Amino acid sequence: MSPDFTPVPLNKAYRLLNHGPTVLVSAEHAGVQNVMAASWACALDFAPPKVTVVLDKATRTRELVEASGVFVLQLPTLPMAAMTMALGTDSAKTHPDKLRQHGVELFYAPSQPTAPLVQGCAAWLVCRVLPEPHNQQAYDLFIGEVVAVWADERVFRNGHWEFDTAPDELRTLHYVAGGQFYATGPSVTV
Amino acid sequence: MSPDFTPVPLNKAYRLLNHGPTVLVSAEHAGVQNVMAASWACALDFAPPKVTVVLDKATRTRELVEASGVFVLQLPTLPMAAMTMALGTDSAKTHPDKLRQHGVELFYAPSQPTAPLVQGCAAWLVCRVLPEPHNQQAYDLFIGEVVAVWADERVFRNGHWEFDTAPDELRTLHYVAGGQFYATGPSVTV
Repeated sequence: MSPDFTPVPLNKAYRLLNHGPTVLVSAEHAGVQNVMAASWACALDFAPPKVTVVLDKATRTRELVEASGVFVLQLPTLPMAAMTMALGTDSAKTHPDKLRQHGVELFYAPSQPTAPLVQGCAAWLVCRVLPEPHNQQAYDLFIGEVVAVWADERVFRNGHWEFDTAPDELRTLHYVAGGQFYATGPSVTV
Repeated sequence: MSPDFTPVPLNKAYRLLNHGPTVLVSAEHAGVQNVMAASWACALDFAPPKVTVVLDKATRTRELVEASGVFVLQLPTLPMAAMTMALGTDSAKTHPDKLRQHGVELFYAPSQPTAPLVQGCAAWLVCRVLPEPHNQQAYDLFIGEVVAVWADERVFRNGHWEFDTAPDELRTLHYVAGGQFYATGPSVTV
């Protein structure tokens, strides 16, 4: 666990997703972990904080989420772009060793011992599934309540992103298609 | 209508939202238009393309969406940051003249004569509500099927964003909180 891994108050959780970053979705059940990439994750409410995420029926991560009732959304950083692409392309169903192959290191917060967190991200949100079977079946849409949040305090502190003063390698990513992302750009205040 | 206003194939619609931009949500019913800002809009499916958007019960725009069954998501650009903030802060319920006050100019595509589009945006997605009363009541969450799409072809063409070669004033916005946005940053290809 990095010394910069710092709790974020739950009522600031939405700020971690508000700018629309691509996320990694991780989950664990019965000692098995997996991680996939997702562009379709979004804040849904402020307090208690809720999120939506789209998890395709073909993914192993979805199976782990359905079995455990828990998922983690975390924000990969600029040096993790290739890893993010690979985690979104290779399925654990055909690449059972994909986490090791793509250099994913997992760690755990003491308070959430079965929520695997991906090393090197800018922020992490542990979410408990609020079961909505119709949404999950018809739209692959999962709703989660955020129950624990941390950020790398070099880039998010006192409730604010500090991308412009943090090292550039802590910028988050916004995926488009075909291996192309945009990094989070300069701050604009009105 | 700008000469750069160009149709986008429906199967490329998700690419307009994939990078997580802040949107303006517009709607019209019985000759009344309104526009609000929203950070919580997200792609939901590729084909037919679907989106989610969170519309608070307190908003006039939601009333128009519920009455007409149609909403437009559009992507404001860098020079529109202050307008976006104002449209997300002032409600038409207390500021009935808010569109004029904040300099919003509306236009219409001939094929969608009751879908008001906001001038100056980078892309526009007209969506038909797929009624999901439980989501709408419990979570303020609306699902829409995208039925018509356009982009400013100076910044999105042949199915790709071209932020790095387009004028900087066509960059899209990513809202955080308290009047602070991030602009879409540099391209990162893996």
